[in-house]
Amino acid sequence: IHSKLPDVGTTIFTVMSQMAVEYNAINLGQGFPDFMMSEELIALVNKAMTDGGNQYVHMNGLPLLRERIAEKVEQLYHNPIHANDCITVTPGGTYAIYTSLTSILQAGDEVIVFEPAYDSYIPNIEVNGAIAVRISLQFPSYNIPWHRVKASITAKTKAIIINSPHNPTGAVLHESDIVALREIVAGTNIFIISDEVYEHLIFDGIAHQSILRYPDLMERSFVCFSFGKTYHCTGWKIGYCVAPAPLMKEFRKVHQFNCFSCHSPVQYALATYLQQPTPYLSLGGFMQQKRDYFRSLMQQTPFTLIPSHGSYFECYSYAGFSDEPDKALATRLTKEKGVATIPMSSFYKEGTDNKVLRFCFAKQATTLEKAVERLLQ
Amino acid sequence: IHSKLPDVGTTIFTVMSQMAVEYNAINLGQGFPDFMMSEELIALVNKAMTDGGNQYVHMNGLPLLRERIAEKVEQLYHNPIHANDCITVTPGGTYAIYTSLTSILQAGDEVIVFEPAYDSYIPNIEVNGAIAVRISLQFPSYNIPWHRVKASITAKTKAIIINSPHNPTGAVLHESDIVALREIVAGTNIFIISDEVYEHLIFDGIAHQSILRYPDLMERSFVCFSFGKTYHCTGWKIGYCVAPAPLMKEFRKVHQFNCFSCHSPVQYALATYLQQPTPYLSLGGFMQQKRDYFRSLMQQTPFTLIPSHGSYFECYSYAGFSDEPDKALATRLTKEKGVATIPMSSFYKEGTDNKVLRFCFAKQATTLEKAVERLLQ
Ligand SMILES: CSCCC(=O)C(=O)O
Ligand SMILES: CSCCC(=O)C(=O)O
Repeated sequence: IHSKLPDVGTTIFTVMSQMAVEYNAINLGQGFPDFMMSEELIALVNKAMTDGGNQYVHMNGLPLLRERIAEKVEQLYHNPIHANDCITVTPGGTYAIYTSLTSILQAGDEVIVFEPAYDSYIPNIEVNGAIAVRISLQFPSYNIPWHRVKASITAKTKAIIINSPHNPTGAVLHESDIVALREIVAGTNIFIISDEVYEHLIFDGIAHQSILRYPDLMERSFVCFSFGKTYHCTGWKIGYCVAPAPLMKEFRKVHQFNCFSCHSPVQYALATYLQQPTPYLSLGGFMQQKRDYFRSLMQQTPFTLIPSHGSYFECYSYAGFSDEPDKALATRLTKEKGVATIPMSSFYKEGTDNKVLRFCFAKQATTLEKAVERLLQ
Repeated sequence: IHSKLPDVGTTIFTVMSQMAVEYNAINLGQGFPDFMMSEELIALVNKAMTDGGNQYVHMNGLPLLRERIAEKVEQLYHNPIHANDCITVTPGGTYAIYTSLTSILQAGDEVIVFEPAYDSYIPNIEVNGAIAVRISLQFPSYNIPWHRVKASITAKTKAIIINSPHNPTGAVLHESDIVALREIVAGTNIFIISDEVYEHLIFDGIAHQSILRYPDLMERSFVCFSFGKTYHCTGWKIGYCVAPAPLMKEFRKVHQFNCFSCHSPVQYALATYLQQPTPYLSLGGFMQQKRDYFRSLMQQTPFTLIPSHGSYFECYSYAGFSDEPDKALATRLTKEKGVATIPMSSFYKEGTDNKVLRFCFAKQATTLEKAVERLLQ
C-alpha cells in the first residue's frame, strides 16, 4: 500500500499516554481531568436513556440544545445567532475543526497556522491537498508576530487558524490581536477557523476574545467549541461549531456524510443542564486555582515557568539545566521519574526544540503534589 | 462563498424526517427503531459514568471492547483478527465508511459504487476529489451485474463499495457474488469497502456473507459495522471498522485527526455487555418477525412487494397504480396520509425513478398497523 499520508505518525497524545500506562507514570501529558464531573449531568444522561432518547436526533444537533447554545452565545458574547442555521453539534472540537477545514479547502489552497500548533491542524490541511503556511509564535511569549502574518498572505491564502486560549502554551489573544487580524483580513476572502475549546478556562481576569464578539470577523469564521473541556468530560466527545449560515451550509454538507449526527443522550442532558443560569461562569476560577497550585509546587523544581493564561496547560523551560532534546527528556521523565508530559517540539512540523515541556494541571491537588514530588526525587 | 460541493443537498433522511414531524406523520422513512433498547445496556452506561469513565479512552477504542469485538469476529466468521492492530471504534458506521475512503482516495481515483446507494457513498468519494463509477443494480432483484463491474475496471479503479444486507433494498450477497468479486479483484490493487452495518439483521435463514469470512478478500478490505443498528440505539453513534494492519494504519492517520476518539461511557458498557454469550444471535429472527408482519399488512394495499432479505427496510413498487414521480408520491403520502417513506430515486445520483418507495419496518407492531391503516384510508 502506497500511503496517502506518508508523513503522519501517531499523535503525541496517544504516544505519551501509552508510555504513561506502560511505566505506571502520573499522566500530565494528554489533556484530561482526573477528577469527577457533575453528578447532576450524569443523572440527566441516565434519564434521557431510560426515557428512550436513544435514536438519532437531528443531524445538526438536538434543536433544544442548539437553542440553549444560542442563548449562551448571546449572553456571553452579545451576539444573537440563529440556532437553526448557524450552530451544528459535533463529536468534539477536533471534529469541528476538521469538518470546517474540509468544507472549504481545495488542492493548492494555503492556510496560515501558528506553531506550536495543536497537532491535528496541519494533517487536516494536508489531507485536503492544501498547504500549511507555518508561522512561529514569538518565543517565549508565544505572541503572534502579525507583521509576519501580513507578509505571508498570498492570492492563495484561504484561511487562518487561530486558537485562544492556546493549546499547548496557554497564551491568549488580546484586543490588539483582534485589531491586527481585522486589518489583515478586511477586504479579502480569507476564512478564519477559531479554536475556542478552552473558552471558559481563562485566568487572571482576562476576558476571552471570542470571534463571536466581532460581527465583522464572524461573517468569515468557523468557531469551534467543546463541552468535554467545559464540563470535565473529555470522553463524552461532544462540542459544536458556530458559523454564519452560508458557511454553516458548507460545513453541514461534509458533516452529514462524515458522522451524520452525534450521541443523542448527552444532547438531551445538556439541553436540560444548560437551562440553569450559566453553570460555566465559575470554571475559570476553578481551573486557575489548579494552575496556581501547580505553579507554586513547580517553584521547588529547576524548571522555569512560561506563564499560561488559559487552557489546561502550563509550559516550563528546562534550558537552564539541560541540553537534552525535549522528546528524550519527556521519555526519560516518564520512564525514570514516573511523570508523563508532552514535548513541545511535537507541535512544530519541523520539530523546533526550544527545550520546553507542556504539563496538564487539570488534576486533583494530590495528583499534582505526587507528580512534583516525583520530579524532585 | 464558492461552494466546494455544489451538488450536495440535504440528505433525504433529514428531509423526510423533518417533513414527518411537520405533518405529524408516522415516520417509516429514516431507519431507526421506535421501541426500547436493552435496559441492561443502559444501566451499564450509567455505571460507567458514575464510576468515572468520562475521560478519553484510547483513540482506537477501549482495548477491552476491541478484544470483545475480536472474539465475536472469530466466533461468527472464524477469522482470528488482531484487536490492537485491526479494529478501530468509530462514532458510527457512516463515519467508518467516510474515514476508510478518505484514507485511501486521491484526486482522480475511481470508485465503483452500486445504485441505489446509501447516500453518503458518492459525496464521500467526491469530497476526496475521486470519481464515482456508478453501476445500477438489476431491477427489481437488485442483484449485482458482475459482467458490468468487470467491464468498468480501469487502471484508475481504487476501490469497490459493497453493502450487504443492502440499504435501501434489503438485497443480500450470496456466495456466487463473493466468487465473482474475488475473480475481479484478484491480482489487482483494488480495495474493498464493505458496509455491513446490518450484519445481524438478515432473514430467511440466509448466512451473512461477511468479507471477514474470506482472508483473501479481507487483506484488501475495510469492513464497517454499527452497534447502533445491532442494539436498537441508532442515536448512540457507535460502530467500528475492521481492516488488516497496513490498511488500518492509514485509516487511523485520518481518524486520529477527525474525531480522535469516541464516546467513552458506551464503550465501557459495551465491553461488559459483549461478555455475555453472543446476545446478537437472536436479532435476525426478531427483526424478521417485524418484516413478515409488515409484509402481511401491506398485502391489503395496492403496493407490490420487492422482497427484502435483511436490513431495516423493505421496498414496494407502485408502478401498478400510479405514474407519479416517487418524490412527489412520498411527499403526498407524508402530507395527506400521514406516512413518511423514502423515495428510491434519492439513492441514484441521476434520480432514476423506478416507482419504488422504501419503508422502515423496525417499528412496534402498533406503529406498523397504524401506518398501513393510514395508507388504506
Ligand atoms: C484530543 S487529544 C487530548 C487532549 C488535548 O487536547 C491535548 O492534550 O492537547
Ligand atoms: C444515518 S441516516 C438514517 C439511517 C439510515 O441508515 C437510513 O435511513 O438509511
